[in-house]
Amino acid sequence: MGFLDMIKRAAEQNRSRIVLALDVKGPDALERAERLLCETAEYICCVKINKHLILPWGVEGLRGLIKRAHSLGLPVIADCKMCDIGSTNFVEAFTYFDAGFDAITVVPLPGWAEGLEGVFHLARGRGMGVITVILMSNRGASEFFEAVIYDEELGVFDKLYKVFARRSLKWGADGVVVGATRPEAIRQVREIVEDLPIFSPGVVVQGGGVVEALRAGASYVIVGRAICESDNPIDKAREMCELTRRFS
Amino acid sequence: MGFLDMIKRAAEQNRSRIVLALDVKGPDALERAERLLCETAEYICCVKINKHLILPWGVEGLRGLIKRAHSLGLPVIADCKMCDIGSTNFVEAFTYFDAGFDAITVVPLPGWAEGLEGVFHLARGRGMGVITVILMSNRGASEFFEAVIYDEELGVFDKLYKVFARRSLKWGADGVVVGATRPEAIRQVREIVEDLPIFSPGVVVQGGGVVEALRAGASYVIVGRAICESDNPIDKAREMCELTRRFS
Repeated sequence: MGFLDMIKRAAEQNRSRIVLALDVKGPDALERAERLLCETAEYICCVKINKHLILPWGVEGLRGLIKRAHSLGLPVIADCKMCDIGSTNFVEAFTYFDAGFDAITVVPLPGWAEGLEGVFHLARGRGMGVITVILMSNRGASEFFEAVIYDEELGVFDKLYKVFARRSLKWGADGVVVGATRPEAIRQVREIVEDLPIFSPGVVVQGGGVVEALRAGASYVIVGRAICESDNPIDKAREMCELTRRFS
Repeated sequence: MGFLDMIKRAAEQNRSRIVLALDVKGPDALERAERLLCETAEYICCVKINKHLILPWGVEGLRGLIKRAHSLGLPVIADCKMCDIGSTNFVEAFTYFDAGFDAITVVPLPGWAEGLEGVFHLARGRGMGVITVILMSNRGASEFFEAVIYDEELGVFDKLYKVFARRSLKWGADGVVVGATRPEAIRQVREIVEDLPIFSPGVVVQGGGVVEALRAGASYVIVGRAICESDNPIDKAREMCELTRRFS
């Protein structure tokens, strides 16, 4: 089963639009991440792992955590924000997929030729997901993602995140990332990417709203610190999940 | 001693402008990387490690390799192409520096506020280097890096890599990356970044020329596969080093 089918099935079964970002740090991060995953599994539809865990343990060290997610019916995204030349991207993507990850995030900046082309081909052949980061959630994202750029393919000036959105559709991406801190941009991206899933990070701690993001057109909301750093992660996950249920 | 002093000293001692990219893959990659490092140490001035080694082994698994480089008088760059929100970037940068890396590469796309700001502050306080990737070496890099964008700070339209170059100078970067495949762009960036080091990847296998890049204004040339995949890495490293000596 491919990534998009996995996340869709989990979202339906758990009636949840929450992607749990396991942004846990410290020497016992891996154990805590696994515990958080098990405790909140029924309230989420997907797991996202980033550098917090990948760097200290390497992908080999995460095989157990990934297997656990799969046994709970949840796909796992490597939020690697890949942004290198083709040969390195290929090795990186292969390593993630080989370790059991179901999808990766990529930054569109390297472009297609000798950039992301090989990654899309590799992923397509294996049913893996490629999610493009087209508008980040932090304040500084406005500096470049929201700047006006000339899109040579269409011969028009437009904001970079909209050009990234159109390119994601053309490249065959399985989803795009747009920060929940910019609901108006989610609306614009929804118009462009049609029925492609939109993943929205930046809720709660960064100030974005779960309901606002989903109402604007986001498909899934990514929640990290609000759950992982909560005194009661189970209650918090249930509470956030319930917010998403009216959109199921 | 800070990163820039370390690389400058090694470049002078070895009369070399070669940064060795340890792009080695496979189950015995770590041993081969260490052997390549030891064999070629006298012909290089710095070592660059990327996802090829970081992902399978994690940063903890690379401490030995980093120590070896230091014992040979060579600084080590983590070519992580960091491109995330501030809190994740901070954890990532801290993890690299803590493992012994002397510099990291960052993609300017997340911008300053809640993006790269914290990383620059962290690095500055520890004498670590932050190198911005402003123009990649692959063909597809032209799609976005070479596109014309509106730079709101200066109120002008310019190519994205030139805006990245100006921003790197403003942010206090310790160096910039410009692909050797675009010597004309190296010339333009050299005008902008004044005496900031320019690191140029993409020679030999990707088609860029060592001498052309240095003549255009590059400070250091990054060489990976041309040495690592050579039948005789020592001879190849010596040969490439000698090409750079007329610029020492």
